[in-house]
Amino acid sequence: MSEHNIVEEFVAVLRKAPKVALFSHVSPDGDCLGSMLAIGLALEKMGKEVSFYNPDPVPSNLVFLPGSSRIRRQLPSPQPETLLFVDCTDLGRVNLSISDITDLSTVLNLDHHISNQYFGRVNWVDSQASAVGELALTLINRLGVEIDSDIAANLYTAIVTDSGCFQYSNTTAQTHRLSADLMDKGINISDIHHRIFDQKPLSQIRLLQYALNGLEMCAEGQLALMTLSTEDFHKSGAEQELSEGLVNHARSIAGVEVAVLLKEVGPQEIKGGLRSNLWLNVNEIAAQFGGGGHNRAAGFTFRGTLAEAKQRIITAIEEALRLGRNH
Amino acid sequence: MSEHNIVEEFVAVLRKAPKVALFSHVSPDGDCLGSMLAIGLALEKMGKEVSFYNPDPVPSNLVFLPGSSRIRRQLPSPQPETLLFVDCTDLGRVNLSISDITDLSTVLNLDHHISNQYFGRVNWVDSQASAVGELALTLINRLGVEIDSDIAANLYTAIVTDSGCFQYSNTTAQTHRLSADLMDKGINISDIHHRIFDQKPLSQIRLLQYALNGLEMCAEGQLALMTLSTEDFHKSGAEQELSEGLVNHARSIAGVEVAVLLKEVGPQEIKGGLRSNLWLNVNEIAAQFGGGGHNRAAGFTFRGTLAEAKQRIITAIEEALRLGRNH
Repeated sequence: MSEHNIVEEFVAVLRKAPKVALFSHVSPDGDCLGSMLAIGLALEKMGKEVSFYNPDPVPSNLVFLPGSSRIRRQLPSPQPETLLFVDCTDLGRVNLSISDITDLSTVLNLDHHISNQYFGRVNWVDSQASAVGELALTLINRLGVEIDSDIAANLYTAIVTDSGCFQYSNTTAQTHRLSADLMDKGINISDIHHRIFDQKPLSQIRLLQYALNGLEMCAEGQLALMTLSTEDFHKSGAEQELSEGLVNHARSIAGVEVAVLLKEVGPQEIKGGLRSNLWLNVNEIAAQFGGGGHNRAAGFTFRGTLAEAKQRIITAIEEALRLGRNH
Repeated sequence: MSEHNIVEEFVAVLRKAPKVALFSHVSPDGDCLGSMLAIGLALEKMGKEVSFYNPDPVPSNLVFLPGSSRIRRQLPSPQPETLLFVDCTDLGRVNLSISDITDLSTVLNLDHHISNQYFGRVNWVDSQASAVGELALTLINRLGVEIDSDIAANLYTAIVTDSGCFQYSNTTAQTHRLSADLMDKGINISDIHHRIFDQKPLSQIRLLQYALNGLEMCAEGQLALMTLSTEDFHKSGAEQELSEGLVNHARSIAGVEVAVLLKEVGPQEIKGGLRSNLWLNVNEIAAQFGGGGHNRAAGFTFRGTLAEAKQRIITAIEEALRLGRNH
């Protein structure tokens, strides 16, 4: 199906559906929550019955998102006819498996990850979009729903968080044009930025402290690696999702091409976050560990100790750096 | 003169001029340098002879700007007919006085500061613009010069630095639309962002680590205080100026009204930096220590030990917080 036809099909399914259940991924971020809420609020303006699902709590800096209090951690029961998955490469990202879905033929899959598994009946996957928020805005426009300031605040948050304040390489001219359209809807961007970025729990600053205490420079300064043990999380009092973004402190060091944050999230369970600056494809490195993501930002889960994960990832990255740009 | 007429007049003067000298302000930033270089490169494409002036060296993170090696710290001699001042409220911002200007009637003044002194013959001052870069792009379009990737990189840098990566409240829908137009010219924004923002010396990150290790919360979480000893500076290898901005990590903690960074810069010599978020006048507090600044950002020098400075500033701030907003 051409991209045009996929969008048409998406719109057609949603127009017909009286009830829609929306799903977003574990460890939720501004893009999955903002996009999910924006689409849900738009569907409600069309008279549809909508439910919102996320397996994890909404991070404290995103509770301001209009509609966020309506997000449930219980699956909708009974399952409505139409299920829309937002920003999820596969059902596992929602802690679900195929057996949890009553009827797979009703699944809509809206995503921007190149590693998306095309698990839905209609799969609108555009890896050129900086955020699913871009696709959600296009979708809402195509549904003919007028964007109000609540929808705009959700979509703007989606775009600004996933594009790293328009700094990541996934930012395009279209990202800016869509953001301009959202600003025309009367959102207060300095208020939104203050709420997202300037209300850090003390526990998050403590996590940064512990991450920096464990900062190691490898590969002649091209690789900066940070680790957070379960003890670090315990001492800081921070939940795991508060470590989101810490890896960028390592990435911003002069001479660094790739930054890694390894988090011990359970016994023998390590989550790795990878960021690269200019050329290294970290999606390929994450794939070696069974993970994925984007070329400049990817992640994986490793079964083993923090020390084992550290040694393995350093080896893999040093190898990739040695192979160099011409790989 | 209407804004339309001012732009027309600006364009008319530049079209006629065979030679143009461009000026930008002391302590140069991305906006004044990027805007100046973009306009100069555009004028050269029109066949004009151009010179660039700035009293200070180009900061190391901006030397990548196309044309920056041509910026001179000596005034052009002889002075050409047409002088264009970029991002300067008055001649003092260029370390000049009226006597330095051969013929004031030839001065063009392009700025976005509300405090601009209208010192030129034609004064294009638009305080709605997030950056002079926005006005420079409009000007170059009106001159009919095609924007190439060098000009676009300069203008994008101007906008992204003065709008705080599109986060400051001066950012408008127009800021995003103009940035989209610049991205269409084939600039590499992740490279530009990396050069501007992601080249922190490792020693600066180490300094942040030590500052966080000394972070203390006082006054029921309203005061966040960090200290850096001479030993911390020594261990990190960082010069004192690299501690600039570290205090904002303390300021960004939820619930904090005032943040303090105390630096031991010599024996019995402590420098204090103060930032407040919403209401506390830190200029008044700095004044108690013989310092000063602004209501939300101030500093002072204290003669004594780090421990003495800490005790004194905590007492002073707790007192001010107790007196409260109605002081």
